[in-house]
Amino acid sequence: MIHYQTEKEKERLWLCEKEFLPDFELKTESVFAQCNGYLGVRAAHPFSLINEQRGMFLCGAFHKAYEEEVTELVNCPDVTWFELEADGEKIYPEQSALSSFERKLDLFSGELVIRYEFELSQNRKIAVENRRFASMARKNLFAQRFQVQVLNGDVRKIKIKTGINGQMTNSGVSHFHKSVARVYEKAVMEIRSELEEGTVIEAAECRAKTGILSEKEFSLKRRSIYGAYALQPVCGQAVLEKITFADQAEDGITTEKRKQMLNASAETGYDTLFQAHRQEMKKFWDIARIQVEGMTEEEEAAVCFAQYHIAGMTPWHTNESSIAAKGLTGEGYKGHVFWDTEIFLFPMLLYLYPQEAKRLLEFRYHGLDGARKKARDYGFKGAMFPWEAAKSGEEETPLYAALNIHTGKANKVWSGIKEYHVTADIAYAVEQYNRATGDRQFMEECGYEIVFEAARFWASCAKWEKQRQKYGIFDVIGPDEYTEHVDNNAYTNYMAVYCVKTALRYARTLKEKQPDVFAALNWKLQIEKELDRWEEFLKKMYLPVPGEDGIIPQDDTFLTKPCLENIKKYKTSQIKQAVLFDYSREEIVNMQVLKQADVVMLLNLFPHLFDKETVKKNVLFYEERTIHDSSLSYCAHAQACAAIGAMELSWEFFRNCLVVDLDENPHDSTDGIHSASLGGIWNCLIFGFAGVRYENGILYLNPHLPGHWKNMDFRMVIEGVQVHFLIGNEKINLTCESQTNAAIQVEAEDCKYILEQTLEIRLKTKGRSS
Amino acid sequence: MIHYQTEKEKERLWLCEKEFLPDFELKTESVFAQCNGYLGVRAAHPFSLINEQRGMFLCGAFHKAYEEEVTELVNCPDVTWFELEADGEKIYPEQSALSSFERKLDLFSGELVIRYEFELSQNRKIAVENRRFASMARKNLFAQRFQVQVLNGDVRKIKIKTGINGQMTNSGVSHFHKSVARVYEKAVMEIRSELEEGTVIEAAECRAKTGILSEKEFSLKRRSIYGAYALQPVCGQAVLEKITFADQAEDGITTEKRKQMLNASAETGYDTLFQAHRQEMKKFWDIARIQVEGMTEEEEAAVCFAQYHIAGMTPWHTNESSIAAKGLTGEGYKGHVFWDTEIFLFPMLLYLYPQEAKRLLEFRYHGLDGARKKARDYGFKGAMFPWEAAKSGEEETPLYAALNIHTGKANKVWSGIKEYHVTADIAYAVEQYNRATGDRQFMEECGYEIVFEAARFWASCAKWEKQRQKYGIFDVIGPDEYTEHVDNNAYTNYMAVYCVKTALRYARTLKEKQPDVFAALNWKLQIEKELDRWEEFLKKMYLPVPGEDGIIPQDDTFLTKPCLENIKKYKTSQIKQAVLFDYSREEIVNMQVLKQADVVMLLNLFPHLFDKETVKKNVLFYEERTIHDSSLSYCAHAQACAAIGAMELSWEFFRNCLVVDLDENPHDSTDGIHSASLGGIWNCLIFGFAGVRYENGILYLNPHLPGHWKNMDFRMVIEGVQVHFLIGNEKINLTCESQTNAAIQVEAEDCKYILEQTLEIRLKTKGRSS
Repeated sequence: MIHYQTEKEKERLWLCEKEFLPDFELKTESVFAQCNGYLGVRAAHPFSLINEQRGMFLCGAFHKAYEEEVTELVNCPDVTWFELEADGEKIYPEQSALSSFERKLDLFSGELVIRYEFELSQNRKIAVENRRFASMARKNLFAQRFQVQVLNGDVRKIKIKTGINGQMTNSGVSHFHKSVARVYEKAVMEIRSELEEGTVIEAAECRAKTGILSEKEFSLKRRSIYGAYALQPVCGQAVLEKITFADQAEDGITTEKRKQMLNASAETGYDTLFQAHRQEMKKFWDIARIQVEGMTEEEEAAVCFAQYHIAGMTPWHTNESSIAAKGLTGEGYKGHVFWDTEIFLFPMLLYLYPQEAKRLLEFRYHGLDGARKKARDYGFKGAMFPWEAAKSGEEETPLYAALNIHTGKANKVWSGIKEYHVTADIAYAVEQYNRATGDRQFMEECGYEIVFEAARFWASCAKWEKQRQKYGIFDVIGPDEYTEHVDNNAYTNYMAVYCVKTALRYARTLKEKQPDVFAALNWKLQIEKELDRWEEFLKKMYLPVPGEDGIIPQDDTFLTKPCLENIKKYKTSQIKQAVLFDYSREEIVNMQVLKQADVVMLLNLFPHLFDKETVKKNVLFYEERTIHDSSLSYCAHAQACAAIGAMELSWEFFRNCLVVDLDENPHDSTDGIHSASLGGIWNCLIFGFAGVRYENGILYLNPHLPGHWKNMDFRMVIEGVQVHFLIGNEKINLTCESQTNAAIQVEAEDCKYILEQTLEIRLKTKGRSS
Repeated sequence: MIHYQTEKEKERLWLCEKEFLPDFELKTESVFAQCNGYLGVRAAHPFSLINEQRGMFLCGAFHKAYEEEVTELVNCPDVTWFELEADGEKIYPEQSALSSFERKLDLFSGELVIRYEFELSQNRKIAVENRRFASMARKNLFAQRFQVQVLNGDVRKIKIKTGINGQMTNSGVSHFHKSVARVYEKAVMEIRSELEEGTVIEAAECRAKTGILSEKEFSLKRRSIYGAYALQPVCGQAVLEKITFADQAEDGITTEKRKQMLNASAETGYDTLFQAHRQEMKKFWDIARIQVEGMTEEEEAAVCFAQYHIAGMTPWHTNESSIAAKGLTGEGYKGHVFWDTEIFLFPMLLYLYPQEAKRLLEFRYHGLDGARKKARDYGFKGAMFPWEAAKSGEEETPLYAALNIHTGKANKVWSGIKEYHVTADIAYAVEQYNRATGDRQFMEECGYEIVFEAARFWASCAKWEKQRQKYGIFDVIGPDEYTEHVDNNAYTNYMAVYCVKTALRYARTLKEKQPDVFAALNWKLQIEKELDRWEEFLKKMYLPVPGEDGIIPQDDTFLTKPCLENIKKYKTSQIKQAVLFDYSREEIVNMQVLKQADVVMLLNLFPHLFDKETVKKNVLFYEERTIHDSSLSYCAHAQACAAIGAMELSWEFFRNCLVVDLDENPHDSTDGIHSASLGGIWNCLIFGFAGVRYENGILYLNPHLPGHWKNMDFRMVIEGVQVHFLIGNEKINLTCESQTNAAIQVEAEDCKYILEQTLEIRLKTKGRSS
């Protein structure tokens, strides 16, 4: 299942690559990447490889290189490359005799360790160990330790060359219009790389920690600077530590300050810096850790892997960036932010780090002007959020993809134009935040405005359908991208109605209870005049309801289309989107075949929208028609199936979703990990298996543990209180860990409880289903 | 001496790399490059290597990427990369078991042949052969043949992937603002890459010539397109041929035409295309070949190497480009044109291909407006030619080099501002062309104007020196760049005087003999009013003359400076510019130490400027002070020493100059071959050893063959007649090979002859000196 091996030690949980496998290089660089929310560094070997794709990404460092290109997260100068010579003999893993190798990532600390043993000429043997981490204690800090140990024979001179390489491009596209290299005090290397807007500064200092430094020389190449350090081993050992400080001009750090911090950090040294970082990571795990009695070590590692990466992609330091589809681990999707963030990643942060969840929404608030512009551009009102966002709120989805190479015709990219639903997804997240935190200040400053403007958009894009005598939303794409240009997509319409309903409720409640707040918002946004329109929208909007067979139509035509007979072939195919080899896109669009199921997604977001039977029927109906060609699909179906107690299916999907980035396929994840799927793991665990929902001030508990699980142990912040959950098959134990006077309403198996300090609930039925 | 081995076959002269030496990769890529004057392709392995620098350069395809960068010859999309899988096993020379290897260049045909033998698993063994050439018969054509031969065991499926990779950059700087990939008729791959001005189009078609093509699949990556071809070997062999057509929008080739030519060429096949190319190369060698009885095979190869590369760098197709310092073989010097072209490379073309020599001057003529602008910008008149030219005549030398990495201060680049002499060098070349060809049309259309405008520049930059009561030229840099900001540099002043003198003579002769031509030129350029000024300039310009010791001062202060005592250390150092490790640039400037000797260069251009004794004295005097840290130095000194009969020194320098690109140092030539030095080899052979000078309508013969040489056999075009020279120690035989009524005045050992059909001259002294 998992391509990587796992290894558990005290306070360490390793994901290991035990063999030297260059075919998996690009995947492993993403999977093992070091990220701290501000900087992300791909886990490339220190040594050059034939196929490698080094990557250093700084949160918010976006740029559009040419008119015909798209704004993208810039691949910044690399600091991970090292060259090693032992007594003049150059070492490369692919060329030199590599007798032992491992590369491993500690999921708890995020430390990467790479070990090599090389056989040199004359029977000499050396071990090389490279360690690194991106500091959670200081966002700009990336630390590396490069150690050479002589295992056999005599090696007198270890020469290590490393520097800052600004020749990096995003797959051949350069971004920096200027690049200036410096060396300060014959110690600190620096490259300042200028974008049209903003400057990226990377500075690095190397120190010999073991061994005698006999030479040090700096050299310049175009857009790059290198230091060469010759060390004479002491007791067969030579250690060079390299501390890198990466920041952006907007961070406002002076050259003097940067040098000082770098000098101090280099003096402090790797180990001490690592302890400080680890402490921060420990704080994260103290809250985030999900322990399950019954999971294998591999499964546990996959869950921790998901959370490790979510920690690494979350912009802990700012509300001016959000989480990208690939986090900070690769060039994929250009570093853009999709609905994935609000729907798949937001929940974990909302229930563990509500402040971070808030920041993600603030990012959207800052993008309101861009969203308003998009709405205007397409003839709508209010705010139409971008399908792909970068730093600003403007739509970044290109209008055209690459030409069809055979016809030479431009392929229009419809998602930026037709995937309306993102605007409701963001409003949904706002309301989730509002419910879970009751954060009035945020709502008054940002939340209401987002939802009002979103509602205004929805009201403006609904069209009157004569035949039905209803409003409808036409020519859209739902989350399922195998179905394009449909009318009344169930997911979209329900989300739109939820958005408008929420807006109307906000407006009415404010008018009544906080008239001054309402007045201010009305003065700014003129909501008053929209209220009737919203009411009319809600009253007359068409919502697809279950037919006689109990099936909610995904859209107006879906159920009239033929099924794909041999769908099983594609569901089990190792190759994603293999269906497109056999069928044209047009054929696919005209069949009951889904990349991911919209209705299932909808039922995940609104578990109580229909009766249990209907939910179950629909989840199973749509699953049958779903190929799961989207990385968002497995987690959604795992959660949905858990909720209906279809535990076998749920378990299958959950296993698949655990390995979206970790499986044996070397082509997956090469351009970055799948953020949304990683977020979906938490959702499935908590909302699905543990069956926890916090709605309208009530904590619902409806666990469906997989058959072989004994219990789940995790934490969530509910109403500002950190609650420790221990969910077993026969009982649930809740403990408040923050010192507050909590009184949380709890409901399980239709019984009501109040959680004050602790609460034990004995379950009548065993906590699992058929 | 030569790093490469040589191998002579009938009609083939190979330069061979017999071992797989990745350390020499970048050098060998330059040295073995395929160039035809229009396109230049570095001789990278077909397979990926850890350290490689693929390069495809198209003559005239210049671009400035960013305001802070310099206009440079763009590294265009690569077509040389191949990926090979034998029954699913991926082959890389650095990873796979490589049991045999050679890469070799046939200097006569320019064909590159790379052969590998790989041991696969299960005792299977395959041989891979990759051949390529850049066609001299069709400038846009680059052909490759990729052959796999099963030597042992059973291999059923050979998968070859290759394409056009537009992710190439100039060391991390991308140039194309747009890149569009296409596949036509499931056969022709194409990438159109757009610069601000101009578009580069590369199209390639692959055909299986042996083996059964079982699959063909095209795939797109960012800025690149690939075809994957699966072949089933027949009789253990599979051959894929790839024909590439590279052109620029300005060439005006339609897509239809390009496809047609490509289809036809692919159909014709590698071998036939190669024969057509080889025939053109044969025509070149029929004229250019220099055969020496007495040279070793290595030396012969080095001479042929020089001429092969000159053939490859000469823009045979246009007068809108000239020859770059690195030809079309690398990114070095940004593809810029220096004085190297007119002084070092021009002579061979002048005497072998006068039409090509003319084109080079026409390129300068087209650059006159840029040169006038430069003159104006610096407060001068006339035309001040650029130190570095790209496509236009504008100065491309950056004003500042990279910052000093330690001080952070910008290093000013003075050569663009102070190396005035290039303007006289170009005028000198014009007059050389005029003398050798008597091409009135060129002179009237371009030549006079260049020289007049150059003379006007010189007159405007001379300043009156009170003390001397003479004009002087102040604060310049001569060819020797270890001496900066000097007054009255001998090379500069003599060249300036020669330029003005030539201009004055032109003007007077035209006025008298072609008054209408003069009138037209005068109407355009207002020369009339300059004549007195030029006369005054000539009369009163200070020219450094030999002092009492017979030494011509290189400039006003040179002889007053201290010598560098331990200069021998640096003269014999394997490392270029090692002197700069021990002395600061300022210290160097203030010593009698030269990178290359200006006075020696001057005496090469004007062998009769002084009496023989003075020439000899000066050549030896300045040589003693020269480190030869410039690649231009050895050839100049070899020629000068031959001319004075210092044969031992001459031979030493000649040998050094033969291996400027070919020696054992893997760091030389990595960014391209040294064009000027290659040109200097011809100059040394013909002007130095053979002692041929054509001046004022007389062919002077004053041979100084190296002691162990028996004779030299070569051709030159004199007065439009192709003359075959056979120069021995005791006699010289001249034969006119064109059918004309030639009557060429010849002078040797102070005797005069007339060459009509043939001429034999018996030498009184043996054709060599002490």
